[in-house]
Amino acid sequence: MSSATEGRVTPRSEDYSAWYHDVLREAQLVDSSPVRGCFVLMPRGMALWDRFKADLDERIADTGVVNASFPLLIPLSFLSREADHVEGFAKECALVTHTRLHTAEGGGVEADPDSALQEPFVIRPTSETVIWDSFRKWISTSADLPVLVNQWANVLRWERRTRPFLRTSEFHWQEGHTAHATREEALARAQRMQVVYGDVVRSCMAVPVLMGEKTPSERFAGAEATLTIEAMMQDGWALQSGTSHFLGTAFSDAFGVKYSDAEGESRPVWATSWGVSTRLLGAAIMSHSDDVGFVAPPAVAAHQVEVLAVGKGEALQAATAAGRALVQALRRGGVRATMDTDAKSLSGPGGEAASGGASARGKLSLGKRRFASERRGTPLRVEIGRRELEQGWARITPRVALDREACELAASELYELSGDVRVAPKHRWTMSDVASGKRRSMAAHGGVLAAKNQEAGDGEAPEMNIVLPGTAGKEGPEHFQMAPAMAFAALEAVHATLLMRRERQLKERTVPVASYDALKAHAAALARTDGGGASAAALTGPAFLVAPWKDCADNERLVKEETSLTIRCLNAGAQGPGPEDRCILSGEPATHLAVFARAY
Amino acid sequence: MSSATEGRVTPRSEDYSAWYHDVLREAQLVDSSPVRGCFVLMPRGMALWDRFKADLDERIADTGVVNASFPLLIPLSFLSREADHVEGFAKECALVTHTRLHTAEGGGVEADPDSALQEPFVIRPTSETVIWDSFRKWISTSADLPVLVNQWANVLRWERRTRPFLRTSEFHWQEGHTAHATREEALARAQRMQVVYGDVVRSCMAVPVLMGEKTPSERFAGAEATLTIEAMMQDGWALQSGTSHFLGTAFSDAFGVKYSDAEGESRPVWATSWGVSTRLLGAAIMSHSDDVGFVAPPAVAAHQVEVLAVGKGEALQAATAAGRALVQALRRGGVRATMDTDAKSLSGPGGEAASGGASARGKLSLGKRRFASERRGTPLRVEIGRRELEQGWARITPRVALDREACELAASELYELSGDVRVAPKHRWTMSDVASGKRRSMAAHGGVLAAKNQEAGDGEAPEMNIVLPGTAGKEGPEHFQMAPAMAFAALEAVHATLLMRRERQLKERTVPVASYDALKAHAAALARTDGGGASAAALTGPAFLVAPWKDCADNERLVKEETSLTIRCLNAGAQGPGPEDRCILSGEPATHLAVFARAY
Repeated sequence: MSSATEGRVTPRSEDYSAWYHDVLREAQLVDSSPVRGCFVLMPRGMALWDRFKADLDERIADTGVVNASFPLLIPLSFLSREADHVEGFAKECALVTHTRLHTAEGGGVEADPDSALQEPFVIRPTSETVIWDSFRKWISTSADLPVLVNQWANVLRWERRTRPFLRTSEFHWQEGHTAHATREEALARAQRMQVVYGDVVRSCMAVPVLMGEKTPSERFAGAEATLTIEAMMQDGWALQSGTSHFLGTAFSDAFGVKYSDAEGESRPVWATSWGVSTRLLGAAIMSHSDDVGFVAPPAVAAHQVEVLAVGKGEALQAATAAGRALVQALRRGGVRATMDTDAKSLSGPGGEAASGGASARGKLSLGKRRFASERRGTPLRVEIGRRELEQGWARITPRVALDREACELAASELYELSGDVRVAPKHRWTMSDVASGKRRSMAAHGGVLAAKNQEAGDGEAPEMNIVLPGTAGKEGPEHFQMAPAMAFAALEAVHATLLMRRERQLKERTVPVASYDALKAHAAALARTDGGGASAAALTGPAFLVAPWKDCADNERLVKEETSLTIRCLNAGAQGPGPEDRCILSGEPATHLAVFARAY
Repeated sequence: MSSATEGRVTPRSEDYSAWYHDVLREAQLVDSSPVRGCFVLMPRGMALWDRFKADLDERIADTGVVNASFPLLIPLSFLSREADHVEGFAKECALVTHTRLHTAEGGGVEADPDSALQEPFVIRPTSETVIWDSFRKWISTSADLPVLVNQWANVLRWERRTRPFLRTSEFHWQEGHTAHATREEALARAQRMQVVYGDVVRSCMAVPVLMGEKTPSERFAGAEATLTIEAMMQDGWALQSGTSHFLGTAFSDAFGVKYSDAEGESRPVWATSWGVSTRLLGAAIMSHSDDVGFVAPPAVAAHQVEVLAVGKGEALQAATAAGRALVQALRRGGVRATMDTDAKSLSGPGGEAASGGASARGKLSLGKRRFASERRGTPLRVEIGRRELEQGWARITPRVALDREACELAASELYELSGDVRVAPKHRWTMSDVASGKRRSMAAHGGVLAAKNQEAGDGEAPEMNIVLPGTAGKEGPEHFQMAPAMAFAALEAVHATLLMRRERQLKERTVPVASYDALKAHAAALARTDGGGASAAALTGPAFLVAPWKDCADNERLVKEETSLTIRCLNAGAQGPGPEDRCILSGEPATHLAVFARAY
């Protein structure tokens, strides 16, 4: 995957791309595969996606969309039904041409020529065509509308240059497809999903985004409008993180779908489609990780807490027993906790007793174990040794230095949450409903965090401790029941810290630009250094450049050629140009405020 | 999909295959697609799979297995690495040979010949080869073992004769793959997953199974042992519903995977793989449905309760308001409830206001609406009209006639469940944790059902009623909080009724057979009638035929040729032959007790 030596994480300023690959390798998120451009999602990477998926799936269902599943293969002729669509997608597809193997003369197997298909199939790069072929059968009158379906699926685009998560040939995503009786209803749906995406990325990935519309030349193939969410990476580059398309009647026309209204009149059907993919994992990884390694957003982390038992001989045995009891207590309360000695293995709790694996790993020094835990990105670490057992409690060490302001926000948000469980961030922490009602626990950990905030000095982040099971903790045994609440409070504090950091960056580094020369100067600062590193300016300076613009595909291309910048979106946050604003390139009256950036 | 006229369900005795297709169509579970042998899972069918998947995923995780994701495509050469494997699987695969399209001369698009792959890819028919290629990189010492991974994936086998769910070219499944340091550990894992499968099918699908081992000639390609779960359909035919394979060291040898033990000695790695698929939906549908249409197992039903508001004018308005309030209350408690007028639509609650759809559907007569609800297979129906509003409660009408004995069992099982939530059936009913703790609710609905059982006369099933919101119900307003508990009690009663029915069938229709002539006679009775119907004997007579057998592939083939029966498994329930038992065909000392049956 990376040329770097195993065990080392290249600093961002030295080689940004190598840093990213090192982070992925050390955290065991992804592995290469024998298929070019396709990657193996390792268990720790898959956990991120599974958590995110469960959350988004529920949010999608809340908007009235139901899941379905359509074929992986699409007849080749379908692609050319919608003229714009084929232009945009037809180039790099995997083609299935045969359906049987036979034994080759020289041994091994080969395609049986007798099994050649009359019409080849394409592995879906996206499913508009095959889905509208179904919609044609499902829609005949207004009583059949709206149709609101979603599928979680793998898709394949034969990409030339790939990078794990960010651009891969095969990837996982969800694709929503809807059919409506009116233009207005379809447009509102496209907008609604853009908002759902912005919310879920913020809540699950702790990543804030800009929301706007793509230029006509950057639209999805076949769309009348493409709405986008754009995230800013640490190097100032943009990552398109999700899109929602208003498709007009292009696909319903191409597939002959009409409905008859109450008067029996035949009417066109309006469409949307919208999707987010495993690319979002790349956004999360690139947004929060540091030169030590991965920093996992707590809401989707494979493990939220790692417990390290330390010491030797009997003391280690006692610490291990207490650690395992703590892990059990946290798990019962819904916290994803593990012993650090188990965290690295490719199996989970409840499996076969490891054949000596855990003990072999246990022989590492404490320093190396801490370091390994940090590189796995686990949000919280708890070390238990002789001292902790004596005092009855242990320190919670967050993966990142907590931000005082963020902790205050987190406390208030948890309080708010305790009032009404349905407000965002609704899925971030899932208390087990066996141990206690969710409502009570939310109140409890909001309270814990607020109290800790009060104890901390001015500008200091609160220090958080967890009472150990089986010890006479100074806070009394009943507080052991609070272990999960304490962990949730700490997780919320980490989440808020990550989110606030990225929000500050997004705000400070999104700057107005008054001239094309200024745009070019900023663009130069965003380029990689000779060694491939991100320059100091790229890591801290202006990154999203907002300029008055008159929409023009030729000028857009010119800017890209001269500066490597692209328009990420128009009128971000619905902010348009002033009446006097003039396009920084053409000098003509501006039609939009464009956000320019380097992009992945 | 079926040649039958829309709206009609062919009786099982008339044409069994047409019956199955009619059931699927009327319940809107599945639709044909433009790709031969591939089907669209419609939202009501997809819901069944999603529910099942969530449950099984948690059970798999409980055994220490973690999820991962491996590529869809497999290099062709990988398939021939393991000699037995290629024999078993190489025949019917989809081959990817090109990776780019270009515009064809006559218009449209075609494969760009310049993009021909040097080595074609196969769309995975199963993933042992590509996964062991990864395991090779992940395993070097005993500290790396065991590796316990699972993936939820789509696979493709180019089947000649397909039937929705039961045999399709593309299908969804989970495939678990594990690597172990010892033979014993691997064998124990294969056995453990067979038990997990038996439990989950019983709990989610209300389908009991026989568990045994496949004959050598029916083993998975490359396996040393294949364990199977076999369900009995209503026509007496068997459906193989899940398999778990002990693979020995075949794949680790083929991919050069070894580990070094504590002494540094190089040792072979032992493997298992195991999977269940959307075929299980076919098992559930065929097991419970009747000549009216689909009967959904309550645990996985898209909707568990349909509420029908009846009447005209103002009375209808009042009934609709009460119905919607009841649906809301049930949903808050975790019951999947809907108004019947929404149940048929291809969108869920929270979507755009239907463009007149619901009202158009509302014009059907009550009889037709009841019938439609029954065909959708929804386990419970509640009708609300003037009378119900006056009395303050409504009758719960189950889709199937409840069995008194099953209701007693259900009540006792719910009581047991309330004592310890972790006992099976752990996931069957998910009370929302907002409304009340799960434990309390389980006790409550166990209690409700037991009380109703006491009220019922001898041999009668209990009649269950639900208090309506916003009415002065005779049981008092506090009982309205019990609506979800009441629904759960009724759902458990339906589940127990379905399961008990199938258990009786499985028990009564699994019979010993003493001679080959007797086997042939039973086989004749299981054949379809001239019109394709299931004969009375096939629907009620002996179906799983248990006979002493001496393992012999030639004899197995002979029996199949002469009787169309296959050996579904050996030593079902771990019951072997007696010491004097002789093979019904060869007359030699029996090595096994074989279960013969007609199979899908």
